Amino acid sequence: MIRADRARIDDFLHQLSGIGRDPRGGFSRLAFSPEEREAHALFRRVLEGFGLRTFTDAVGNSQGELTGREDLPALITGSHLDTVYQGGNYDGAVGVAAAVEVARILAEDGGLRRPLRVVAFAAEEGARFGAPCIGSRLVTGAYGADTLKAMTDRDLITASAAAEAVGLRPGEAASARWDFADVQCFVEVHIEQGRVLEARDRPIGIVNSIGGSTRVELVFSGRADHSGATPMWLRRDALAAASDFVIAVERRARAHATTVATIGRLDVEPNSMTTVPGRVLLQLDVRDVDSERQRDLAEALLDDAVRIAGGREITVSARRLSDQSPVVLHGTMQSALAGAATRRGTPFVSLPSGASHDAAHLATHVPTGMVFVPCRDGVSHSPAEHADSARIAEAVDIVVEAFRSIDAGERV
Amino acid sequence: MIRADRARIDDFLHQLSGIGRDPRGGFSRLAFSPEEREAHALFRRVLEGFGLRTFTDAVGNSQGELTGREDLPALITGSHLDTVYQGGNYDGAVGVAAAVEVARILAEDGGLRRPLRVVAFAAEEGARFGAPCIGSRLVTGAYGADTLKAMTDRDLITASAAAEAVGLRPGEAASARWDFADVQCFVEVHIEQGRVLEARDRPIGIVNSIGGSTRVELVFSGRADHSGATPMWLRRDALAAASDFVIAVERRARAHATTVATIGRLDVEPNSMTTVPGRVLLQLDVRDVDSERQRDLAEALLDDAVRIAGGREITVSARRLSDQSPVVLHGTMQSALAGAATRRGTPFVSLPSGASHDAAHLATHVPTGMVFVPCRDGVSHSPAEHADSARIAEAVDIVVEAFRSIDAGERV
Repeated sequence: MIRADRARIDDFLHQLSGIGRDPRGGFSRLAFSPEEREAHALFRRVLEGFGLRTFTDAVGNSQGELTGREDLPALITGSHLDTVYQGGNYDGAVGVAAAVEVARILAEDGGLRRPLRVVAFAAEEGARFGAPCIGSRLVTGAYGADTLKAMTDRDLITASAAAEAVGLRPGEAASARWDFADVQCFVEVHIEQGRVLEARDRPIGIVNSIGGSTRVELVFSGRADHSGATPMWLRRDALAAASDFVIAVERRARAHATTVATIGRLDVEPNSMTTVPGRVLLQLDVRDVDSERQRDLAEALLDDAVRIAGGREITVSARRLSDQSPVVLHGTMQSALAGAATRRGTPFVSLPSGASHDAAHLATHVPTGMVFVPCRDGVSHSPAEHADSARIAEAVDIVVEAFRSIDAGERV
Repeated sequence: MIRADRARIDDFLHQLSGIGRDPRGGFSRLAFSPEEREAHALFRRVLEGFGLRTFTDAVGNSQGELTGREDLPALITGSHLDTVYQGGNYDGAVGVAAAVEVARILAEDGGLRRPLRVVAFAAEEGARFGAPCIGSRLVTGAYGADTLKAMTDRDLITASAAAEAVGLRPGEAASARWDFADVQCFVEVHIEQGRVLEARDRPIGIVNSIGGSTRVELVFSGRADHSGATPMWLRRDALAAASDFVIAVERRARAHATTVATIGRLDVEPNSMTTVPGRVLLQLDVRDVDSERQRDLAEALLDDAVRIAGGREITVSARRLSDQSPVVLHGTMQSALAGAATRRGTPFVSLPSGASHDAAHLATHVPTGMVFVPCRDGVSHSPAEHADSARIAEAVDIVVEAFRSIDAGERV
C-alpha cells in the first residue's frame, strides 16, 4: 500500500515542466537564471498551499518548514530545481517533488516531534559556472561571497552578478550558512542517472557512496588561417589538437571500469567554415569512486594535452574548475533507509552514485542518505530524461518511514 | 615611380576599419549584414566624392562608373567588402581599395575610351551562408532569387531574409544580372592569402588558376547522457566520433601537396561540461587545383564519416553546401597584366590561387585576370591579417597600365 499520492507528484512535475522549456529541446533552467527562480517560486507556492512557512536565503536556496512539536534538530529532505543546458524535467526535480510529498503526508498526519524542513538548493548543476552544488556548498560554508565572484559562465558573467540579476544578495552569502547543531539528518531522493536499477529490476536504490569529480578547462591556441590558401604543413590547427585530446581522454578513461571522463563542452574560434581554427576551449570532467585514480587520470590527461600541443607547435593552457573527492554516506542513514524499505516490503539495491549531488556536501556535516529512483534507459542531462512517478511515490514512503523511525528515537 | 597614392589607399582602408569591429577581435562584416551594407555605403560615398555615378543592385552589389569617351564594353575591377567571422580588414577590401584608386587615377587623367566600372560584390565569404561568392554568382545568373531562399546561416536565417532585413530586394535578383556583351574584361586585386610572394620576395603575383572547393555539412548524432553516471562502454558520444573525423580529414589531406581540407566550424550540442555530447554539426571544406582529386577526397571523407559513425553505433548525415571546380584564368589577361608589370619594372610571380574568388565566377563569362599582393606571414581570415599599401599601390599601377593597353586596342 503506497501512501504517497502519485497524482500530486505528477502535478508538481507537470507545473514545473511549464518553466524553462528550451526551443532546441528539453529544459534550460540554469543556475541563477530567471527560470530557476521561477521554479523556486513554484516550490514555495505549493508548500504554502498546505500551510508551510517558506523563505529563500540570500543565495537562492529555498526552504519550507513544518513545525515540530518539540525543540529538536530538524529532519531535512530535498534536492535542486536547476538543470543543465537542454536537460530534462527530472534530475533534481524528482527529489524536490518527493520532498514536497513527504511534507504533505507528515503535515496531514499532524507533524512529528522534530521540525521537518524541505529544501530546494540553488545552482546544483555545474554546467553554467563550472562548479556543481553551489547552493549546498554555500550552506555548509565551503563556498562564500568571494567564491561566487570568482566563477564565470561562458559569457564571462560571474555567479555573483547572475545571482544579483535575479534579485538575490550574493554579498550576504554568509547569512545562508546552516547551523548544523540544529539539523538531525538530510535525505535526498534523486533519479539514478544510470542503468543498475533497470538492469536488476529494482524500484529503489539506497546510495552507499558518491563519486567525485575533477574538472579542468583547457584552451588550445594555434593560428587562424585561410582554409583555401594555407597548406596542411603550415597549419597550426587548434581543432585538430583538441580532437587528438578528445580521443586521448576516451582511451584513458576506458582503462578502468569505474572511471568516466568526458569532454562535454568544446568551443571553436572563430568557428567559420573557411578558417583553420585558431583557438579551441574545452572542459574536461573526470570522475571515479577512487579519488586517487581520479586525480591521477586528470594529471595524465594534462600531460597528454601538453604533448599533443607540443607535437603540433601550438600552445595549451589549463585551469582547474573544481575538484571533489568521493564521499561515503553514513552507515546509520543507509541502515535507516534500508530498514524502512524492508519494513515496507520494497526491494532495493545498495549502489554507488557516479554523479555528484548536494548530498555529498551535506554529508561532511550531518548524517546523510540518498534514495535513487530509476530513470528510463538510465538517460539524464538530456531532453529524453524520464522517471515514473510510481517509483517516486515508493521513495517518498521510504523517506517518510525512515523519518518517522528517526523521529521516534532511532539513533542516526 | 609609383603613380598610385598610398595615402589615399590607406585612408580608404582606415575608414573601412571603423566598420564591423568584433569585440572578440578582428572584423565581422558578414554577408548581408548591416556592417557589410555600411561598408558599401562608404565605397559609394568615396566614389561619388570624385564624381562617379554609383548604384547598388537588388542583391547588394555596388558599382561606380567612370564614363568612357566611346560606346564600348566596360573595363571592370573590384572585389568584396564582407568578411568571415572575426576576419581582417584586407581580404576583399584591398581589391576594392585598389579599384577605387584605379578609378581616381583614370578620372584624374580624363578617363578612357571605354567606361571603367568599379565594383564591390556582396556576400563573397561563404562563412555565413555556406556558399561563397553569392554576389558574383548572382550577376552571372548562376544563382537567383530561389538560391537565396534555400541558403541559411547558423541561426536558420535565409540569405533572402537577411538581404531583405538590410533593405535589399532579393526577390528581384534577376535584375542584378550583367549583360556580358557590355563587358570587356574583369580584373580583381586581392591579398595572396598564402606565403609564396613573401617566400620569393616578389611584390606582385599574377594568378594563373583558382582552386575549387567542395563543401559539406555533416551531423553526427549520438546520445546526450550524464557525464558522471554513464560508463564509457554505454556512451554514444557524438564529439568522440567528430574528433575521429577531424583527424581523418587531416590525414587524408596531407597525402597531396595541393590538397587542403579543413573543419573550420564545429558545434557541439548541448555543449555542457556534464553531458556526453549528443550531436555535433561540422562543416568540411575540401580544395584542390585538380577538381577530380578534390571531389574524390570529399567522397572518401564521407565514407570515413559513415565508417566512424558505424563503429560507434551512432548516425551521421551529410549535405553538400557547394561544389566549385577549379578555374584557369584567361591567358590574354595573364599576358596583359604580365606585360604591364614588365613595362613598369615590377618583378612578379605567376601562381595559382588556393582560395576562391569572385573572379572565378566572372571568368566563365568574360576575360578575367587577378593580381595578388602579399599579406604578412600569409595570414588571412584572421584578425592578424595585414597587407602593405606600398604593394597595393604597385598592383594599382599594373591594373591602370593593363587597362590603358587594353583600352588602346590590345586584344584580350
